[in-house]
Amino acid sequence: MRSTHKATTHNLLRLKKLGIDSRNEHLVFMRRDCRVCISEGFEALSRLWVSAGTRRLAASLIVVDDHKRLEMDELGLSEAATTFLQVEEGDLVRLSHLGALDSMSDIRRKIYGNPLDQTAYRRIVADVIDLSLSNIQLSAFLTACSGERLSTNEVVYLTRAMVEAGEKLEWEEPAVFDKHCVGGLPGNRTTPIVVSIAAAAGLTIPKTSSRAITSPAGTADTMETLTEVNLSIGQMKKVVEQEGGCLVWGGSLKLSPADDVLIRVERALDIDSEGQMIASVLSKKAAAGSTNVVIDIPVGETAKVRNHEAAQRLAKNMKEVGKFIGLDVEIVITDGSQPVGRGIGPALEARDVLAVLNNTAGAPNDLAARAVTLAGRLLEMAKKSDKGNGERAAAEILRSGAAWEKFKGICQAQGSLKTPPEARYRHEVTAESSGNVGFIDNRKIAKVAKLAGAPTSPASGVMMLTTLGEAVLQGQPIFEIHADAEGELAYALEYLGDHSDIIRTKK
Amino acid sequence: MRSTHKATTHNLLRLKKLGIDSRNEHLVFMRRDCRVCISEGFEALSRLWVSAGTRRLAASLIVVDDHKRLEMDELGLSEAATTFLQVEEGDLVRLSHLGALDSMSDIRRKIYGNPLDQTAYRRIVADVIDLSLSNIQLSAFLTACSGERLSTNEVVYLTRAMVEAGEKLEWEEPAVFDKHCVGGLPGNRTTPIVVSIAAAAGLTIPKTSSRAITSPAGTADTMETLTEVNLSIGQMKKVVEQEGGCLVWGGSLKLSPADDVLIRVERALDIDSEGQMIASVLSKKAAAGSTNVVIDIPVGETAKVRNHEAAQRLAKNMKEVGKFIGLDVEIVITDGSQPVGRGIGPALEARDVLAVLNNTAGAPNDLAARAVTLAGRLLEMAKKSDKGNGERAAAEILRSGAAWEKFKGICQAQGSLKTPPEARYRHEVTAESSGNVGFIDNRKIAKVAKLAGAPTSPASGVMMLTTLGEAVLQGQPIFEIHADAEGELAYALEYLGDHSDIIRTKK
Repeated sequence: MRSTHKATTHNLLRLKKLGIDSRNEHLVFMRRDCRVCISEGFEALSRLWVSAGTRRLAASLIVVDDHKRLEMDELGLSEAATTFLQVEEGDLVRLSHLGALDSMSDIRRKIYGNPLDQTAYRRIVADVIDLSLSNIQLSAFLTACSGERLSTNEVVYLTRAMVEAGEKLEWEEPAVFDKHCVGGLPGNRTTPIVVSIAAAAGLTIPKTSSRAITSPAGTADTMETLTEVNLSIGQMKKVVEQEGGCLVWGGSLKLSPADDVLIRVERALDIDSEGQMIASVLSKKAAAGSTNVVIDIPVGETAKVRNHEAAQRLAKNMKEVGKFIGLDVEIVITDGSQPVGRGIGPALEARDVLAVLNNTAGAPNDLAARAVTLAGRLLEMAKKSDKGNGERAAAEILRSGAAWEKFKGICQAQGSLKTPPEARYRHEVTAESSGNVGFIDNRKIAKVAKLAGAPTSPASGVMMLTTLGEAVLQGQPIFEIHADAEGELAYALEYLGDHSDIIRTKK
Repeated sequence: MRSTHKATTHNLLRLKKLGIDSRNEHLVFMRRDCRVCISEGFEALSRLWVSAGTRRLAASLIVVDDHKRLEMDELGLSEAATTFLQVEEGDLVRLSHLGALDSMSDIRRKIYGNPLDQTAYRRIVADVIDLSLSNIQLSAFLTACSGERLSTNEVVYLTRAMVEAGEKLEWEEPAVFDKHCVGGLPGNRTTPIVVSIAAAAGLTIPKTSSRAITSPAGTADTMETLTEVNLSIGQMKKVVEQEGGCLVWGGSLKLSPADDVLIRVERALDIDSEGQMIASVLSKKAAAGSTNVVIDIPVGETAKVRNHEAAQRLAKNMKEVGKFIGLDVEIVITDGSQPVGRGIGPALEARDVLAVLNNTAGAPNDLAARAVTLAGRLLEMAKKSDKGNGERAAAEILRSGAAWEKFKGICQAQGSLKTPPEARYRHEVTAESSGNVGFIDNRKIAKVAKLAGAPTSPASGVMMLTTLGEAVLQGQPIFEIHADAEGELAYALEYLGDHSDIIRTKK
């Protein structure tokens, strides 16, 4: 076809900064009556290419009717988009229809129930990382992968694609150890103890941890009340060279960055896709350069994994996928019926960790026992102990003070050993009736700790004063709320008023 | 548990109007550093209850960092949320965490592959309509229903729930007729002709039509260039009482309102879930009070349904679901390999309709033939003709001028009979080489019509000057672009420059 009319270009608008953080998805704000919207037929939810100079990104449109906000020739962009495009207020930005993404064709095939190959998962992961897929599209991808819709091969492809798309740590040692907990159990802060025991036994265990996502504390939050955790790769390597282990925040290292995007949508859906979870955990471990991992799966009515069969299946699948990507995975299935230790919240958990490492009288035995079990498995994997003797050896390293010396060494190498802060406000919650403690709701107790300010306010949280099976009298304190602001204490108490079933006693 | 501390409430903010249209999803804009965000732990993508007085809605959070936009005690809301809550600038609005929605538990069960019952579909549809589900959640629901994941029973449950949740039209007549086209074929504007023939034959056919969603024209857009289409239910009933039929816009009637929300997310994903499509079409027909429907399924490489097997399966499923909800469904599978008639765009299609109804020399025969086939089936369903004779009877009603008289009657009863507008600019596109026309891309030709301004600018669109199989000479005009603004013409031409394969000739 031939056309003599030369087209002019009408799709440039000037940037107005709006200071909006849209997280997973780039947003573009345009007036309904601006000529670009009208002539291109853009409307709310339209997907657009937004470009400036040689940079280009995919964004979703939000239509603005308020004429005070934007001039006719202006558009707004979410903050991450402004940064990525390297544009300033007043710069010209070009808009066009976002054609069909190849990754979206892959996702559509998955929606229709077809398995995808390695290439498809690479394409999808690339578009996840640069935010080319909208939240609607990410949700469709995660849903299409849920239930049991990913084969083992597909989980392997997805895991590999996630590893390859981020940074990868390299270590000189042939065996590099790691541990992970599938989560859902407040206070289960074994990591600092396990790393200290393992490193004291001579293992290489460069531990990177996350901050809390939905819980009152992540290991990185807890460690931050004790030492520096925001280390560069270079600083981290120095610590590991010197001490054999480290306890740092993994967030700045860009290991498996697709996971950070996907996890936010999974949270919004509140679905745990097993395949996605395995890819998420194992991709971070592989990217961190680990070769041997012990994984703690707590099982309980209010934990993440609710019954033994689910735990067994997860264990089997994790080991199998691990094998394909060169990770030796060992699983420890543990009791997930109640919180671990006494503290729930960064500083409160740090104090439990210190008590265990120092063999203090009254240190929480359950936390110590869990850490020793996990560390024992690592010692056996490393052939530092014979099968069946790892736990005894780990217990001895803890009892002897060698683990505490190692922990101090690691903290000092990371910058300092600090004393965890204490909260300004405390409030005791008492038993409504006498009896034996028959049920503790992990999710609700975690919620109270979060409302009290954890993890943002590190001293805040909950201190447990009872455990399952214990006899309590009416009026006896059963837990204590710690808060740093009166308002946050009030929040936690308001929630408690509505949820009197967090800890239940029976005669 | 007992607590003596009385909670104070900290989650009130003042409304600042932002004039933002977020369409499917209510949005709330809050400063990252406002006390509600901090104390509640809200973050980007958090789901909140927003309430004022006795009204409450679910919204997704967008975090704002720009302090010029919102004061510390202010929040912004998308427009639909402001309207629903009946709040004005400065009014106090309360925020709280959105707990788990029951409908989301249902959706999660569907994600994990379990079938849902009637109650679950009712809950989901209710939350779809009041926008309690976010786009992320709607996407998960649609994905979980895609492929062949809805049983016939589930399609019936979904269809019923969609019908019940909206308005329902009631008619005195025992048999009420309707027609529908599954779409994807530009210019296939048979509806005004079919309704005129059927009503002229004495059938009751209260036709409600949609405006274009992704196409250059919907029947309502075309009819709007000829008469009034925005009628109330009362006005519509009067027209039908007098003429036996009508040709109005269905959008203001609130028939099956869930469909309007779901369809926008489906479009964003570009997935056609067959179950959803059947529920969408049949729920609108049932809500309109129809008892007998003829459905046109055009099949072609660039039509919505791409092959005969898919059309057969769709036909079978539509008939089956129809039976369960009390709709007698007949299917006509038609050729979808090229546009129908000559005009593509509201006024251009209206002129084709007028030519056919007036039996004008040179009226598009293909459009007339298709309309006669569909009307014939309706006459047979109504027992106005014996099996096999409907088409002949319909043709006679058209030829005799009775259909044209009926059409004029309907338009006048709806308010007036207008002359469709003509576009200010025309541009002929010519063949690049001589040969026979071997392929016409329905999707791309529709795109050209949309870029030229259709349907927003009703005179705009494309006038086809050739058909499949026709011999053309190099330089011979093959279609004409009609536009009302020079900029829009330029847009269409720019697109043509990049897509020279819209119409292909072969030697």
